[in-house]
Amino acid sequence: MESGQEFILITKPEVILHLTGAYAEGYLLIGDKNYLFTDPRYFYAVKNSIKDEKTVALLGGLSEVKELLQEKSLVGLDFSYESVNLYKEIKKVTEVFDATDRINRRIARKNETQLEFVQASCSICEKAFWATLPSIRLGMTELELASILEYNFKALGASGTSFDTIIAFGENSAVPHHQTSNATLKKDSVILMDFGCKVSGYCSDMTRTLFFGSPTEEFLQAYSAVQSAHEKAKQNIKSGMSARFADKFARKSLEKKGYGEHFTHSLGHGIGTSIHEYPSLSPKSGDEVILKNGYVFSIEPGVYFDGKFGIRIEDTVALIGGVVKSFMTDDLNLKIIG
Amino acid sequence: MESGQEFILITKPEVILHLTGAYAEGYLLIGDKNYLFTDPRYFYAVKNSIKDEKTVALLGGLSEVKELLQEKSLVGLDFSYESVNLYKEIKKVTEVFDATDRINRRIARKNETQLEFVQASCSICEKAFWATLPSIRLGMTELELASILEYNFKALGASGTSFDTIIAFGENSAVPHHQTSNATLKKDSVILMDFGCKVSGYCSDMTRTLFFGSPTEEFLQAYSAVQSAHEKAKQNIKSGMSARFADKFARKSLEKKGYGEHFTHSLGHGIGTSIHEYPSLSPKSGDEVILKNGYVFSIEPGVYFDGKFGIRIEDTVALIGGVVKSFMTDDLNLKIIG
Repeated sequence: MESGQEFILITKPEVILHLTGAYAEGYLLIGDKNYLFTDPRYFYAVKNSIKDEKTVALLGGLSEVKELLQEKSLVGLDFSYESVNLYKEIKKVTEVFDATDRINRRIARKNETQLEFVQASCSICEKAFWATLPSIRLGMTELELASILEYNFKALGASGTSFDTIIAFGENSAVPHHQTSNATLKKDSVILMDFGCKVSGYCSDMTRTLFFGSPTEEFLQAYSAVQSAHEKAKQNIKSGMSARFADKFARKSLEKKGYGEHFTHSLGHGIGTSIHEYPSLSPKSGDEVILKNGYVFSIEPGVYFDGKFGIRIEDTVALIGGVVKSFMTDDLNLKIIG
Repeated sequence: MESGQEFILITKPEVILHLTGAYAEGYLLIGDKNYLFTDPRYFYAVKNSIKDEKTVALLGGLSEVKELLQEKSLVGLDFSYESVNLYKEIKKVTEVFDATDRINRRIARKNETQLEFVQASCSICEKAFWATLPSIRLGMTELELASILEYNFKALGASGTSFDTIIAFGENSAVPHHQTSNATLKKDSVILMDFGCKVSGYCSDMTRTLFFGSPTEEFLQAYSAVQSAHEKAKQNIKSGMSARFADKFARKSLEKKGYGEHFTHSLGHGIGTSIHEYPSLSPKSGDEVILKNGYVFSIEPGVYFDGKFGIRIEDTVALIGGVVKSFMTDDLNLKIIG
């Protein structure tokens, strides 16, 4: 192996999947050639599922990685993810540098096949949502509704959920990270559903807010503000824009209508083999975070009124040919049921 | 804050949940008093769910943690989990040491309330298994069977799965980490089901191997060998034993019958708010890893015949009063269905 060669070393299974086509716990060493070291639990499955011609599957672990490296190699790690132990082990044999940004930018961009996987995941996600609506009944629990939705994911061909489904009835919807509970559906309640599935390892993420019964004027106005903020973001976000700037369209639209302080989180996050990845579309994102063609992310403005209700409308989208393309069907109008 | 004080800093949400009763992304600083710093997404929920009197919930993040620390503090981190970034940030203000073992041993021991949560999780897990069996049909897919089982988890009151359910039909059962697929159930097939749910944040883990149709003599012999290895482990593992020694009862029992090389993984792993935690019951475990009362772990011997079939029988158990107590009903006999 050439002296002074630069490598990137990756252990996050989701990133290994995105880069090689094979899901595994192990060590992916990226250089002129790529080496994926796994133990016997994964090796045989990995050998058959690698889709990247540059990658060779080998039986082994950290010792084998260290043997391949030379004193004069340079090894890049994702400092935001990799453990102190791995850092110290690699430092024993060679120089280590922070490759977080490089890895982030590399996995943010999806190729055509990967975009097709995301589309398949989003299509099943949305179909499962529609298939679940007729089951909504007065008195059912949040967990029951979640389990019907998740059953539909698998029945439609997804391998599972991309995160724990959030179902929030009534004032529970005011908590953005509500944990789905045994709370029961009452008359005249908000139903907030935040859910996603996985297909070929790729995640989808979708949120819809419905009303069960007769909504108040206050709710209807807030819903319409969130819907229009969502649409403004979709229309105005373009390739080449910073992620921080992209966050502003929905935020300003909500601020103008007096909802600014109720939009308590960022506009969106990157989506791929992980449900949350680079970039974050947030007021706190650095200027160097630029949205590019092939990036997949969520658009999810929301407003929350503590003890009353919350509203969030979320689609998974991609930048294609410079503009936002939604993987969902763009039907964002309020559904009133019950 | 006293100079020279020792702290442990934890960011793993599952560990924060185990130690405080509150699930959150954030920073738990353990000293004479415990401080749990979270952002607004978690803060309000956390404040209400903390069950540990020593812990105070505060709004904040890494900056606030660093402010609390002094130059002469000593901060312990789990080097096997915490990121290079966190390590470097804390090193900027004070000394850092590896607290992996201390944290591991602390979370391995479950108190009575936590054992009750594990029992509740295991009871639902096993009930869901029995409720699912009547749905098994010729021609169904592995994913369909998984979705029925997972539906039953939630219907019985679990918050979700503790890991991606493994359903393996036929020769797929020979792959210990098989990814549940669209493979269909054929006549005279092994059905391997490895599954678990979560209740109050605590995981269960169970594997059963069934036969659909008429099993061969080869399969029946191997099943009986795994069952008896499982029972030997349960009878002989005691508190105070090393985890490496504990692994031997099942392993020797399988070796004696000629199945040694087919038992390709370790006997078990710790279970708590994470599905895999300390200790590992493995030939590779260090001598210092001692099983103690209150430890919860899996017992899961298995044998695998590439291209043919695999068998694994797994219960979640705890050490109580020096001996193994299973959270499942000990009904390990082969079920033949179809």
